Amino acid sequence: MRIGELSRRTGVPVPTVKFYVREGLLPPGRLTSPNQAHYGEEHERRLRLIRALIGVGGLSVAAAAEVLAAIDDPALPLHKALGAASHGIAAPDDAEARAGRPDGTAAEQTADPDGDAETDAARAAVEDLLARRGWHVSAHSGKMAALVAAATALTRVGHGDFLTHALEPYADAAQLVAEADLDYVAGQERREDLVERAVVGTVLGDAVLTALRRIAQVDASARRFGDRAGTPGAQPPSAGTTSAP
Amino acid sequence: MRIGELSRRTGVPVPTVKFYVREGLLPPGRLTSPNQAHYGEEHERRLRLIRALIGVGGLSVAAAAEVLAAIDDPALPLHKALGAASHGIAAPDDAEARAGRPDGTAAEQTADPDGDAETDAARAAVEDLLARRGWHVSAHSGKMAALVAAATALTRVGHGDFLTHALEPYADAAQLVAEADLDYVAGQERREDLVERAVVGTVLGDAVLTALRRIAQVDASARRFGDRAGTPGAQPPSAGTTSAP
Repeated sequence: MRIGELSRRTGVPVPTVKFYVREGLLPPGRLTSPNQAHYGEEHERRLRLIRALIGVGGLSVAAAAEVLAAIDDPALPLHKALGAASHGIAAPDDAEARAGRPDGTAAEQTADPDGDAETDAARAAVEDLLARRGWHVSAHSGKMAALVAAATALTRVGHGDFLTHALEPYADAAQLVAEADLDYVAGQERREDLVERAVVGTVLGDAVLTALRRIAQVDASARRFGDRAGTPGAQPPSAGTTSAP
Repeated sequence: MRIGELSRRTGVPVPTVKFYVREGLLPPGRLTSPNQAHYGEEHERRLRLIRALIGVGGLSVAAAAEVLAAIDDPALPLHKALGAASHGIAAPDDAEARAGRPDGTAAEQTADPDGDAETDAARAAVEDLLARRGWHVSAHSGKMAALVAAATALTRVGHGDFLTHALEPYADAAQLVAEADLDYVAGQERREDLVERAVVGTVLGDAVLTALRRIAQVDASARRFGDRAGTPGAQPPSAGTTSAP
C-alpha cells in the first residue's frame, strides 16, 4: 500500500508516519519509484504498536525507539532483550525528565542537604524487602534507584510509615502482575513475538494497572468512607490546618 | 524562618519557592515587613510534599495544585475530597497530554477509522470484569475511560489476548494495593491528615508499584528465561522478522 493508505488505515497523519521513519521507529517502505514507496502489513502493525507505546504508554519517541530496537535485534540474547525493553520503559528516566520539566529546576531534589540519613533508611527498607522475597536486583540498576527514590521521597515528606504498611502488599501485587506478564510472554515460538509481548504487556500493562488501581481505590474508599462527610470524629472540621494561608 | 532558610532546608531554590507561591501551591509567608516574609514548619512540610508530588509522582504543577486544593478545602465532604485528589492524579489527563506531546499529533488515536468495534470489545471486557468484582464506577469517569483506552489500544495492536490473560490477576493486584492504601489512610483523626495520606499514597504509591513491578519482572524473567539465549527453539534466530528494513 502507499503511504496515504497506511495513514488512512491507522489514523496516523502522513507527516507523522514520515517522522517515525526518519527517527528510526518505523522501517522505510520499499521504493517502487524514486519518490514512491510501498508499505506492507508489517508497517501497519508496527505503526499501531508505536502509537500504543507513545499514546497510551506515555513513552517518549526516544524511549520507544530504544524499546523497538530491542525487539528488532535478533543477535541480542533473549534475557538481554527483555532487559533492554524494560530499561527503555523503566520509571527513573521518566521521573527524572519530568522532575526537571515543570519549573526548570532539575535534580536538586537529590541535593537535599539532610537527605542522606533518609536515603539510607529507605534503601535499608527496600533491601530488607528484596532479601525477604529472594528477589535479585543489581543495587545499581535503574529500577532499584527508582524504588529507593520513591521510598526516600515518602520518608522526607513525613510518610515513612507508608513503607511499613504498604511495601509487603505492594510487593505481593507486583509479583501477581509480573507472573501474569510472564504467562502472557511464555510459549511464544518466535523470539520477536516474545519480546513484543513483553514490551506491550509492560507498557500498556502499566496503564491498565494504574487505571484499575484508581477504580479499586474508589470502590474501597466508597465502602469505607462513603457515608461520612467532613472530618471524621468532629463536625465542623477543626481549625488550624497546616495549609491555611 | 526567612525564605533563604526555607530554601536551604528543603533544597528548593528561592525562585522556585516563589513560583510555587505565585501558582497557589504554597501559602504565602506571613509578612514581617513590606518586603520580608516569615515561613514556618508547615511551609517546609508543604514544600517537601510539593516536590514529592511533582518530582517523584510526576504530576504537572496544575495537577499538583488541584490535589493540594482538595487537601486544603475543609468544606469538601471527605469522600469528595478523596475523589478530587484521585481525579487530579488520574491517568487519563496525563496520557492524553503525553499523547499529544512528542510529535504534535494530538488525539487522532481516537479517530482511528476502524476503532469502534475494538473499543466496544474492550469496553465489554472491562465491564464484565467490574461486574464480576462488584466494583462500582461511573461509565463516564476518567478512570473508566483510561482503562477502556488502554484495553482498546491492546486490542488494536493485536494483543487483545493480553486482556484475557491479565485482567483478572491485574485486578487482584489492584485490590491488594487499594486495601493497603486504605489501611494507611484509615484511623487518622484529622481530615487533612487523612486526605494527605490518600494523596501521598496514591501518587508515590504509583512510583513504588511501578518500580516493584519492574523488579519482580526481572526476577521472574531471569528464573524463566535466564538460561536461554536468542530464539526459543531455534539457533540462530530465524530470518524474516516483521521489522527488517
